[in-house]
Amino acid sequence: MAMKKKPVTGMKDILPREMEIRDYVIGQIKETYKTFGFSSIETPCVEHIENLSSNQGGENEKLIFKVLKRGDKLTSAAGKLGEAVADGEADYNVLTDSGLRYDLTLPLSRYYANNANELGSPFKALQMGNVWRADRPQRGRYRQFMQCDIDILGEPTILAEIELITATTTLLGKIGFEKFTIRLNNRKMLKAMAAYSGFEEKDYDSVFITLDKMDKIGLDGVNEELVEQGFAKESVDKYLDLFDKVTPDVDGVSFLKETLGDFLEEGVAEDIITIMASVDAVKSADFKIAFDPTLVRGMSYYTGPIFEISMDEYGGSVGGGGRYDEMIGKFTGQNIPACGFSIGFERIVMLLLEREYQVPASGDKVAYLVEKNMPTDKMLEVLKQAKEQRESGTSVNIAIMKKNKKFQKEQLEKEGYTEFKEFFVDRM
Amino acid sequence: MAMKKKPVTGMKDILPREMEIRDYVIGQIKETYKTFGFSSIETPCVEHIENLSSNQGGENEKLIFKVLKRGDKLTSAAGKLGEAVADGEADYNVLTDSGLRYDLTLPLSRYYANNANELGSPFKALQMGNVWRADRPQRGRYRQFMQCDIDILGEPTILAEIELITATTTLLGKIGFEKFTIRLNNRKMLKAMAAYSGFEEKDYDSVFITLDKMDKIGLDGVNEELVEQGFAKESVDKYLDLFDKVTPDVDGVSFLKETLGDFLEEGVAEDIITIMASVDAVKSADFKIAFDPTLVRGMSYYTGPIFEISMDEYGGSVGGGGRYDEMIGKFTGQNIPACGFSIGFERIVMLLLEREYQVPASGDKVAYLVEKNMPTDKMLEVLKQAKEQRESGTSVNIAIMKKNKKFQKEQLEKEGYTEFKEFFVDRM
Repeated sequence: MAMKKKPVTGMKDILPREMEIRDYVIGQIKETYKTFGFSSIETPCVEHIENLSSNQGGENEKLIFKVLKRGDKLTSAAGKLGEAVADGEADYNVLTDSGLRYDLTLPLSRYYANNANELGSPFKALQMGNVWRADRPQRGRYRQFMQCDIDILGEPTILAEIELITATTTLLGKIGFEKFTIRLNNRKMLKAMAAYSGFEEKDYDSVFITLDKMDKIGLDGVNEELVEQGFAKESVDKYLDLFDKVTPDVDGVSFLKETLGDFLEEGVAEDIITIMASVDAVKSADFKIAFDPTLVRGMSYYTGPIFEISMDEYGGSVGGGGRYDEMIGKFTGQNIPACGFSIGFERIVMLLLEREYQVPASGDKVAYLVEKNMPTDKMLEVLKQAKEQRESGTSVNIAIMKKNKKFQKEQLEKEGYTEFKEFFVDRM
Repeated sequence: MAMKKKPVTGMKDILPREMEIRDYVIGQIKETYKTFGFSSIETPCVEHIENLSSNQGGENEKLIFKVLKRGDKLTSAAGKLGEAVADGEADYNVLTDSGLRYDLTLPLSRYYANNANELGSPFKALQMGNVWRADRPQRGRYRQFMQCDIDILGEPTILAEIELITATTTLLGKIGFEKFTIRLNNRKMLKAMAAYSGFEEKDYDSVFITLDKMDKIGLDGVNEELVEQGFAKESVDKYLDLFDKVTPDVDGVSFLKETLGDFLEEGVAEDIITIMASVDAVKSADFKIAFDPTLVRGMSYYTGPIFEISMDEYGGSVGGGGRYDEMIGKFTGQNIPACGFSIGFERIVMLLLEREYQVPASGDKVAYLVEKNMPTDKMLEVLKQAKEQRESGTSVNIAIMKKNKKFQKEQLEKEGYTEFKEFFVDRM
């Protein structure tokens, strides 16, 4: 078989310029989140296929890169598949026992279920790692990408939400982002608004899928789509009237609390207001936090507050999260309060690359150009000079001098080498 | 399907204590290698199956985690497989188009072939990332593990070897390792010794596999095994006589140069001696570099100098590398000089864990214990105090006070929190 030079479809080689920004952002993430008391953890990239296919991952479950069984298990499975194909009833899942994780939340829940005894309570986790989705490749979206999640497990109060949002916005401020918006809602508010309007619980998901398009198709578009779907005009009118009247602030929350009455669980409105006030009072970056009753967040596992970062510059979400109090119970039979915030690492790196972000310099970069065939004893002198400079934190790149020295220097300048030292055989 | 709490077979969840060490070592690696002029790069974890199965990976090619094709391609492949199984001629490879990388060297070669125009020349790459091998699980060896490689591409002289060994040993010294040995050999020396003794080129690989056991079975054991394999007694005697007489130092190299005569390519002995002298002259850690004519290094892709780190403490190799001037040519048709050094990241972390290595502290760790049901305005005061301390670099973990406060504090102490602040509702 011929060797292939390109990466596999939809994945990318990362060049030094981008890596410099990635490494810098990773450093800032670790440093910032550490001050908020988060501990780094890691889960394997490969996860049981049973866990990946447990309906926790929504649409992502259709995008799993599945790993082939090995050895006898593969032979046996392939035999069965052979029969099934012949019968026209092929279930390819017999060929696989695992797959690449499509997010970090499911593995984290498994991790906590497996290791709770050895973890703090509450446990504040920072997880950075690649995830894979066999999505249709498109510009700026890749099939392997890095996720960066912080989660607080075992904390039932909104202290979790406040800390997660404060930590995330502090990080964004540190790496130069401003004027973004944290949109905040609560799955219970979403449901109460639907219930109040007369929708049936079984229809919530389709109603929310349409609602989620509000920022694209507007109030009229949502109206049209809901009516088309056959929902009672009365419900649709009542529903949209709520959205027409509500404002994206504390007053909006109060208005809904009053209007929805018993449809809304006690404390939900108050929690939204407290999160908004608290985050605002201790914020260290220039952003605003707004109530957004149209915020849906796709994943069905959310049980309480949900939030998303909107950035005009990007024209979309660069991160989000929420409370998922019922996922860990899927592993252990006992629910544990859980809340997480994931930043869109790849999008943030892309934005920094686009604005030609300069990573703060850490030490000089010097290139040593050494004439060809330098005798060993003289080469040792070069190496010793390099050693001294390196020990003081300078990056020293020793290279053999090329015929076209001017071009060589230009290349090195592109790599950030601003200083040059030349060593000649007969001048040492 | 039921959810599984344990990680997939042979892979592990990494707890905060280990992650602290891993993060620290990663930081030291990046910082140290940067001063040697290496640039971070990243390749996808998933690689073309054609590349992974190209005979560059030796035994590792038997251990690939293969990724199942998706969509129509899977349906079509499974159909063909069905027929083949029925015919008793199943080739399961039709089911897969890619796999998880088993090392970082092959992806690096593809990367360089794909991106050479945008990279420095020579190009000094630092690559850290997970690799996967479906090895039989055993204590301390996992099916997913981190590798950490530095490579210099485009440098034909031993400046590459000297820089790689100096960078690696400097790193090891920084994280507290000493009294280790760099064993150095050259594939050309290995071959010359075999040729001189009268072995045929087609037999080199089996001779070297036996030679590789020298440290376990000794000179007599190697003798016995070679004779058993049917090699001429005269060749075996002549071969072992060399090993009997050679010393693990510069004199040993000179002895071989003299003895092997024209069997040894010009410059090979001199290069070994220069590498040894240079590394020794600029070393900044307490280690020795020794010539070791029994060092084989399994991979067939090596073309020149090869080296390995021996650590008595570990009783084995904790890293190794060598020159592989012919791999990039497999992708481009044009060979590019290449040389790399890979440290055994997992082994190093294991050794540090075993000696209960204390990562240098970076800032205090304070836990705030807040009485339950703290009113919002008072909670804001707590959050503001935390903000100030965090901005000064202190890690602040805010937690709701538990009934068993003593136990809670003990737990937090285990997580490294040495200072506590308590906040009560009626004392704020």
